[in-house]
Order: sequence, then structure tokens, then C-alpha cells
Amino acid sequence: MDIKRLNPLFTARSVALIGASSTPGKWGHVMLKNLINGGFEGNIYPINPDADELLGKKVYKTLEDVPETPDLAVIVVPPKAVLSAMQACTDKGIKAAVVITAGFAELGLEGRRLQDEMVKTARAKGMVMVGPNCNGIMSPWEKLYVDFPSFHVPPGSIALVCQSGGIVDGLARQIMIKGMGCSLCVASGNEADLHMEDYLAYIADDPRTSVILCYIEGFKDAERFYSIVREVTKTKPVVAYKAGKTQAGAKAAMSHTASIAGSDEIFDGICKQAGILRAKNLHHLFNVGTAFMNQPLPKGRRIGIVTAGGGWGVMAADECVSLGLEMASLPDETIKRLDAFLPAWWNRGNPVDLVAGSDPDDVLRVVETVLASPNVDGVIYIGLMPALKFTRQELMQRGNAGDGWGDALVRTSVELVQHLSGLARKYEKPVVVASEHLIASAAQEARVLHAIGQAGSVCYEMPYEAAEVMAALVSYGKWVNAGG
Amino acid sequence: MDIKRLNPLFTARSVALIGASSTPGKWGHVMLKNLINGGFEGNIYPINPDADELLGKKVYKTLEDVPETPDLAVIVVPPKAVLSAMQACTDKGIKAAVVITAGFAELGLEGRRLQDEMVKTARAKGMVMVGPNCNGIMSPWEKLYVDFPSFHVPPGSIALVCQSGGIVDGLARQIMIKGMGCSLCVASGNEADLHMEDYLAYIADDPRTSVILCYIEGFKDAERFYSIVREVTKTKPVVAYKAGKTQAGAKAAMSHTASIAGSDEIFDGICKQAGILRAKNLHHLFNVGTAFMNQPLPKGRRIGIVTAGGGWGVMAADECVSLGLEMASLPDETIKRLDAFLPAWWNRGNPVDLVAGSDPDDVLRVVETVLASPNVDGVIYIGLMPALKFTRQELMQRGNAGDGWGDALVRTSVELVQHLSGLARKYEKPVVVASEHLIASAAQEARVLHAIGQAGSVCYEMPYEAAEVMAALVSYGKWVNAGG
Repeated sequence: MDIKRLNPLFTARSVALIGASSTPGKWGHVMLKNLINGGFEGNIYPINPDADELLGKKVYKTLEDVPETPDLAVIVVPPKAVLSAMQACTDKGIKAAVVITAGFAELGLEGRRLQDEMVKTARAKGMVMVGPNCNGIMSPWEKLYVDFPSFHVPPGSIALVCQSGGIVDGLARQIMIKGMGCSLCVASGNEADLHMEDYLAYIADDPRTSVILCYIEGFKDAERFYSIVREVTKTKPVVAYKAGKTQAGAKAAMSHTASIAGSDEIFDGICKQAGILRAKNLHHLFNVGTAFMNQPLPKGRRIGIVTAGGGWGVMAADECVSLGLEMASLPDETIKRLDAFLPAWWNRGNPVDLVAGSDPDDVLRVVETVLASPNVDGVIYIGLMPALKFTRQELMQRGNAGDGWGDALVRTSVELVQHLSGLARKYEKPVVVASEHLIASAAQEARVLHAIGQAGSVCYEMPYEAAEVMAALVSYGKWVNAGG
Repeated sequence: MDIKRLNPLFTARSVALIGASSTPGKWGHVMLKNLINGGFEGNIYPINPDADELLGKKVYKTLEDVPETPDLAVIVVPPKAVLSAMQACTDKGIKAAVVITAGFAELGLEGRRLQDEMVKTARAKGMVMVGPNCNGIMSPWEKLYVDFPSFHVPPGSIALVCQSGGIVDGLARQIMIKGMGCSLCVASGNEADLHMEDYLAYIADDPRTSVILCYIEGFKDAERFYSIVREVTKTKPVVAYKAGKTQAGAKAAMSHTASIAGSDEIFDGICKQAGILRAKNLHHLFNVGTAFMNQPLPKGRRIGIVTAGGGWGVMAADECVSLGLEMASLPDETIKRLDAFLPAWWNRGNPVDLVAGSDPDDVLRVVETVLASPNVDGVIYIGLMPALKFTRQELMQRGNAGDGWGDALVRTSVELVQHLSGLARKYEKPVVVASEHLIASAAQEARVLHAIGQAGSVCYEMPYEAAEVMAALVSYGKWVNAGG
């Protein structure tokens, strides 16, 4: 398929909403409202035979009445009316449709027959179709929010392609709360026409996307998926969570999006051979995905760990080695450079344990010294606190302060992660950060994390998360260096 | 050892701080401040030859000068002065000491010799010793906060025993932020005198503790640990994370707390034979631990899943089965009772997929109907939102509102989890909840979670977390039912 055919979906300058509704809470109402509130700058055409105006927009009785050919049609009418709506779309010359309506292949044979008719109708006139049984798409750079939940994830570089609308929403919200943004979001539903791999092929060419996160319940055409995604991963990292890995899950997937989950071993094989990074769960998916926004790819698997507390270093070392990474052996040269400014009793090994009470500037010097070592391919730095120029006492006691202190904490945290990102760029090696935030207030912690995200960085929480992220960077680095 | 010997540690009515300091930031200053700010109601005796008053407290030149025999001595003097401080304690007749000072066995042979002397001194006079090289202890019900970080975790039912002060602090802070509290916290450091198992034996008898969470780097006496913990788990669940599971981690553990990590396989065997629930990481430790605060133990492993979104149900079913749980087969009777009020097109299987748009009261009826089924030993309920009586639109758009709406959301969320806890009690089966919170504001989300914790419940985030928690409940239920 020519991926340009997906252009009207994601860069539409005019949208018809077939089934627009005046009833608050109904999808045809919510989606119109979301589209308007998202700031879409093109024309919006609500279609409803029984209304004249909706949310300030002129309503058209039929699609035929619309004075232009919209780029995109969104269909939210009841299942029995979908086919004729599709027919109206192709008659009008529309080239892309998003069918939100559920009640097709996921319900059984009759639904599948109707769904097949819809595909036939679309394909006969070269119209692409998203869904049916989906939550829609979001194209934040275009302010095009065709989606059910009422939030507008800001533009960014993460693409989401999920066979579940709820999961797109959940991930997009996490991305938003952490100060980051999305390039494109697709809830692909039953994938009657466009499949997972079509979106991936399109996004591979999108210069604004740096990483693609997928939630997969099954494939319509596993071989086609494999042959396409294998090319995609040469230019963009693809991180995927596969549901339906057990029989019970596969059964649930069938009734959710009519997906045939297939063998988990086969999927694992596809991932390995196509360079897909497989995520264990959605936290893992999110963590690994966000890392690819700004980290240089490591050239090897020798990791240096710098830690502010012994226990955290022990956990990080354990996790790195468990995941196939190697604890870098620090050369004499590096030890000597650290000796020059660390207290006499430092542990002279990797992990480098800063212990309580280190000077904030020294912390950054340690990270840089270890990163600069020729034996080190990447650094995991655990515990932002000692580098923050605030004492634990301040953090825990003033964490609730509504005064300038909270702003200072945000500012200092952002400067710190930006400094670390700068080191990563300078040495072309990843620096992955994990830290607890010993701040008394959860709200203040959320502010810090949001600001860090806005600055283009991520701060994970636990050592195991940092190790998982580093392992994924190493794995993808190896894939890319081997030519995919 | 007679566990009553630990009483002066955790129920001290008077505390001497040997090495109290007037220098802000120094441990001897911070710890005195924390003890005072924690609201300790007994006598506090700072000891420092060069000061008269510190933070409003009269300072004593020597321990000898103190007009009574304190229950507890806290020692923060430099390493070389610790032994004579210990001697002064036993001369005074003190029965419990916490040695914060580091620089002993973790640094090598000389340190180990000094540490052995300290133990000999303490044991000769029947004084118990925590540490050295530790962050201290907290006994929140007694307002006794002998700890470095400046926060005061409220009293509650979770006990923490960790071979890392940083990890006690991190866990205690999480517990606090989530609205819960601790019964006792111990950072056990080098465990020269008191070992992990001594604290466990003491806590087993503590009526205010419902669960014990451990972070372990190694054992001083693995056989003794095994024989004691095997008894503890008969009355209290013990959840443990073991660090130093790889060679790299073990090496780091040695330089952190002089712990010999031992074989990971042996630890796994100990866990299985002693009924310890082994945690994969600290998130897992926290999740499983908090579940034991209020969940009835399941009598079998047949799980019902109720979900608000298809994808979430697929993931939950996958995770349950992967962890050895069984998806309950709902009997006709249960299906019939659900048929009576669910829409005609509901999926008639487990997971029960509520799909968008269900009536909030119906959601709770579904949970109760599934829980009441004789084929079901416990329910995982995913997605609080449909039961919240707020629309997604409200949650996402008003999530930032500073008005009464935010309070209403908190109140409704708490009522909901309390209702679910009530169902769990009524049917004597666990109901584990996981939910994303589609609230636009992270601060509002934190408020909701804090209130849920204060109400004695927990809401996890992801299906895999709920499944892991349920698997732990099932595992411990089996252990207890088999008589331990």
C-alpha cells in the first residue's frame, strides 16, 4: 500500500462527523466537542438530519449537503447505519474514514460479514478506513483530535499505535502528565482495512516521530506485519506490548477486538528477527519508549553505575547483569581521576557509591568521569538528590511550601537533567537516570517530573527501571549498528 | 534471644543522643531535630562536651551526667569514639543502642575487629545494638523517630526491616504519600549484634503490625534466619526483596553493608520453605505489602476479573494465568444473575467486560455478583472510572478544578473503595483494584490515592500489578491454610 494514502487521516484540513449528536455524553457529541476544543483550524462539518447547529457549528442534514469534499470522515452512527454512511463517504469522494462504531467482527459472524462489506465499499473507491470499534486518532501537531477522552495530548515525538482505545488514552495521559507529547496516536480497533503495520509504515516516514509504542492483541496478517516492521525498525525504534499471550488472554482479546492472538513464541520470534523491543507490561513500554526521545544509542553493553546510596547501587548492578548488561571495569586512569576529588574512603569500584554528603558539583564530575571512560558504554545514575543542592531536610520539610522554594526545586532539577543530557550528547553515550524524589509532597514531585519531561528528559524511579531502559537502548543500538 | 530485650528500642521513654551536634546538616544535629520534631514525649538527652543547649534541650557533657538511665542510646560519634561510647552506655546500665556511625566491617578487617569489640561490649552487659552503619529506627506509634531523613511516617500497620537506610526512607515515604502508615521501621545496617531475624521475631508479636516488608542484602546466620522466619510467617506475612542476586550485586552489597549475599537459589529455597513472599523489585514489594493491610486471604486460586475496558481485561487475564492463577469459570447461575441487569450484548464470560457507558451502580452489582459466585475465590476489578459517577469528560477537564469538584472526586473515590472493601469482608474474599485515573491533574490524582490509603485501601495502577498482588494473597493463603 502507498503510505501517502494515510495522509488525509493525519493531516486532514477538513473533517465531517457523521452522527454528530446534541446529547451530552454521547460519542457523537463528545467527539465533536473534543475536536473543536483541540483547536482544529480546518473546517468541521457535523452531520445530523435533526439539528441545525451544534456547539456553535452549522450542522448538515446529509454528507451530500457539505459544500466541499472533506479530507476525513468520522463515523459514529449505530452499526446498522455504518455501511450506508461509508457509501455516502465514497460517493462524496472522501479518501479517509474513522469508524468509531462497535458491533462488528468482535461480536461474531454477522458482524464480520457487515465489516467485510464496509471494507469492500472503502477499497472500491480507494478510501482508507480506521476501525471499526475504535476510539479514533490524534494528530497533535495538526491539532486534530478525533478521540473519545476529553484531553489533548500536546505535540511531541512519541507515536502510539494500539489495538485498544483505553490503552492509547492511558499512555497519552501518562505522556502528558510527565510533560512530554505525541506525534501521532492511533486506536486501530478491529483493523478491518488498515492494519497495525500500515500505521507503522506511515510513521516510519514521519520526521516528527522518534519512537513508536504499540499495544498488540493480534495480527490480521502476521507475515505482512513482519516484512513491514522489519524495515520500520531500521529507522525508528518500535516498542511493543503483546496481550493475549495466554489462552485466557487470547480468548478475552477475541471478544475485545476480534483479534486472533496467535502463539506467543511466534510473536517473540518476530520481535527478535524484526528488531522490535518487546515490553513486559505497560510501565515497561512507557519507560523504554520515552528513553528513545533523547538518548544516544550505546555502542556496547558495558555500564557504569553512579549511585547516591549503597542499596540502590546493589539493586542496579543486579538488574543490569540479570538483563545481560556488563558492569564496566573502571580502568586505573578513571579510578585515578576519581581519586583526585572523591573522599579517601570511596569504594574504588563500579557501582561508584557517592554515599551521603557528597558535594553536588562532585556528583556531576563523577558521572562525567565515569561516562568519559573508554571502558564505559553508558551510565546509570541513581539518586538525583545529592546533586540537587538541597538537603534531604529541605526536600522533605519544604516540599509542601507554596513559596519560591518549590520553583527553585523545579528549576534546579531541570538544570540537573539538562546537564546530564548534555553529557550524554557530548560523549555520545546514554545517561539513564532513576531517582526517588524525597519530597514530602506528591504534588510537588509531579511538578518536578512534568518539568523534567518538558525539558526533553525522563527520570525513572527505580534501579530496575533504569536497567531495563539501558538494556533496551543497548539492544536497539546493536540492531541498528548491525544494519537492522 | 528473648525478644523482650528489644522493647527498650521500640518503646523507649527516654533517649540519649551521644554525639549531638550544633552544626546544621551533621547527623548529630539532624537526628536530634527529627527526634524532637517527631513529637517524642519522653526525655531527650543530647550529649556533647562542648555545648550547653541544643535546639532548646539541655546538653550533657557526658552520659554519666544524665540524671537517669535512658532506655535507649543513639550513637553518632566518629568511628574511633564508638567503642568508648558503647562502654559508657553499658556502664550507665543502658539496655539498647542504635549505632548510626559507619566505618566498620563494610570497610575491611580493621573495621570488623572494632565492630566485634562493640558487640562483645554490648553483649557482656545484655545491651542490644542496632547497626552500626545504619540510618536508625522509627516507632511511629511511640512518636520515636530515630532516623536521618526529616520526615515522620505516620503510625500504621506496615513494618519495614531493611539492610539499607535509603530503602527504609524510600518505602516509608511511599507509604506516607499513599496515605498509609508504619508500625515499626528498622534500618539494620551491618547487623553486628541484632540480625534481621531478631527484628522479625519481635514484630511477629506486635499486634499493631499486619505485614512485614524486608530488604535483604545477606544473612549473618542463614540457618537462624530460616528457623525464626518460618515461625513468623505463621502469624504475619513477610514480603522480601533480596539484593545481591548476581555476582556484581553481591560485590556491591559487600562494600555497602559487609553482607555476604549468598546463593540466590538458596534464598529462593528459604523463601519457599519458610513461606516468605519474594518480591521482584521494590514496586512489587510495596504493592504486595500494602495488600496485606486489609484483604481477606483467598481460599483458592480461581479469579474473576471485572473490567471497564477490553484491553485491560486481556492484560489482567494474561497476567493471572502467567502467575499460576486460574480464570474462574462463571457458573450458569452467575451468568443468569448478570444477564438480569447487563445489556444484552455483554460478553458472558470472564473477564466480565463492562464496556464504556455502564451505569455506576451496575458496576458494583457486577463485582458483587462475580464475588458471590461459588466458583470464584477472589475478584480483580480494573478501572474505577465507570463506577465513579463522573464522566471521563468531567475527570479530564475538571481534574484541575480547585473548587468543590475535586473534593467530590476524592469523596466518591473513597466511598467506592470502601464499598469494595466491604464486599471483600462480606464474602471473605479479596477484591483487588487496579485503575488508571483519567484525571488531568497529577496533583489531584495524588490526593485521590492518598485518601484511598487513609481509608485503609489501595488502588494499584496496572492489571499486572493487581495480578501479582492476587497471586501473593493466594500464595500466602495457601501457606497459612496448610498450617505454615
